[in-house]
Amino acid sequence: MKAHNRTVIFISDGTGITAETLGNGLLSQFEDIAFHHLRLPFIDSPEKVDHCLERIAAIGKLDGIRPLVIMTMMNPQLGARLRQADALILDLFGAFIAPLEHELGARSSHTAGRMHGHSSREYAHRIEAMNFALAHDDGISATKLQQADVILVGVSRSGKTPTCLYLSMQFGLKAANYPLIPEDFERGRLPDTLLPFRDKLFGLTIAPEQLQRIRQERKPNSKYAALENCRYEVAAAESLMDRANIRYFDMTARSIEEIAVQLLQAVRRED
Amino acid sequence: MKAHNRTVIFISDGTGITAETLGNGLLSQFEDIAFHHLRLPFIDSPEKVDHCLERIAAIGKLDGIRPLVIMTMMNPQLGARLRQADALILDLFGAFIAPLEHELGARSSHTAGRMHGHSSREYAHRIEAMNFALAHDDGISATKLQQADVILVGVSRSGKTPTCLYLSMQFGLKAANYPLIPEDFERGRLPDTLLPFRDKLFGLTIAPEQLQRIRQERKPNSKYAALENCRYEVAAAESLMDRANIRYFDMTARSIEEIAVQLLQAVRRED
Repeated sequence: MKAHNRTVIFISDGTGITAETLGNGLLSQFEDIAFHHLRLPFIDSPEKVDHCLERIAAIGKLDGIRPLVIMTMMNPQLGARLRQADALILDLFGAFIAPLEHELGARSSHTAGRMHGHSSREYAHRIEAMNFALAHDDGISATKLQQADVILVGVSRSGKTPTCLYLSMQFGLKAANYPLIPEDFERGRLPDTLLPFRDKLFGLTIAPEQLQRIRQERKPNSKYAALENCRYEVAAAESLMDRANIRYFDMTARSIEEIAVQLLQAVRRED
Repeated sequence: MKAHNRTVIFISDGTGITAETLGNGLLSQFEDIAFHHLRLPFIDSPEKVDHCLERIAAIGKLDGIRPLVIMTMMNPQLGARLRQADALILDLFGAFIAPLEHELGARSSHTAGRMHGHSSREYAHRIEAMNFALAHDDGISATKLQQADVILVGVSRSGKTPTCLYLSMQFGLKAANYPLIPEDFERGRLPDTLLPFRDKLFGLTIAPEQLQRIRQERKPNSKYAALENCRYEVAAAESLMDRANIRYFDMTARSIEEIAVQLLQAVRRED
């Protein structure tokens, strides 16, 4: 076991999600060191910054070594105040705003609350896409299929719903999911309702052993979860997608993020 | 209207989501400049880097000005090769890995595919939490309420489901949602099933006018969507939460990300 031998503090005048996301990526490069994480979001006043400085000092004393601070402060005055902390400061904004200002010949607006770079229209679009993905779980009509930016097919529990939600939440894509069921396998071809939407149709697949584990948790000792049945369904679904010439992605060793980005590339044909 | 006068290219040997998220935050500081975005994820071989270099050069020629490159390259050799591009390079990893190595007295492992800093156990936990949030939409049992890390109450369409999903996806929290319905308002108190879970109970509220717009899209010209009814439900829900001494958050002018982080703080009592 690794000891919690270093504290890392994510500080932001916004949500701190960006600081934490990039910070985790950086820290994962140091796999022999275990980090104790602390989040301090919405640090948007001098008083709150001072309180942070006190906590940082106290943590340094307690740990016997100065902590790491990973910060995204939009407000430059508050950022400067925070940089006085007795800590290793990784200032994500400070490091990049100056070179950008120079390159663009423009001053940054240093406005808090824009951290995710979403205009309110983009944000509404993302929420709309999420609701679309959620509504789809109830069932699916031709109108809905028409409205979708992307339609995912695959066997039950192959990861369609989380992938659809991620696509909607992260990229604002309207993603519909269409489960392939034994009826489709017996017929040996995709449902007719899907045929007009070929160009936005993609598949997900998964190793039968992993599918079994997932289904087993949901319906223990059912035929649905039996390895034999999982093998049959996965093979039938893959051959069905092969015949229809639909590109499909293997969820087995990939994260939803990775699959979502690959899907985005495929939909937008950026690759 | 702003012209698309500068191209920004997000390049990563992973998904590029971190590069894009931080990049969007940085670029939103320059609101007078419109950026044309291009994503180049999974650039994980010298051949793919060379192809990127060609595209960067071609874009520079077309735009008449060098593009911006925002990169998160785990592989240091590929990163170095990419830095030769004729572009303003913002190298998120390069800028921070060296100071971290010095501070920690350790070499980074430079391993691709760790970008989100999730171990596979953390990842499985996140997926489990997402499935929990999704399963909850069907209905809710005492067992499920017991398992939840947080339970959100609020009127229909106050944003409970997207918030629960965000909490699960981003933070691995098991979030259940419990809609407040006219029956609860008539009774004048929270459902008895919720009472044992007071300490993980939080509310969402929303301005009646905004609620009306959202409901109107879903069920046009219904009593459900009428402004009068929205006013009644919101007021009744708030007074019910006040009486039960439940802390609630106003979704009206806030993003789901902000509310989710505030909830996380409240649940973990980090504030």
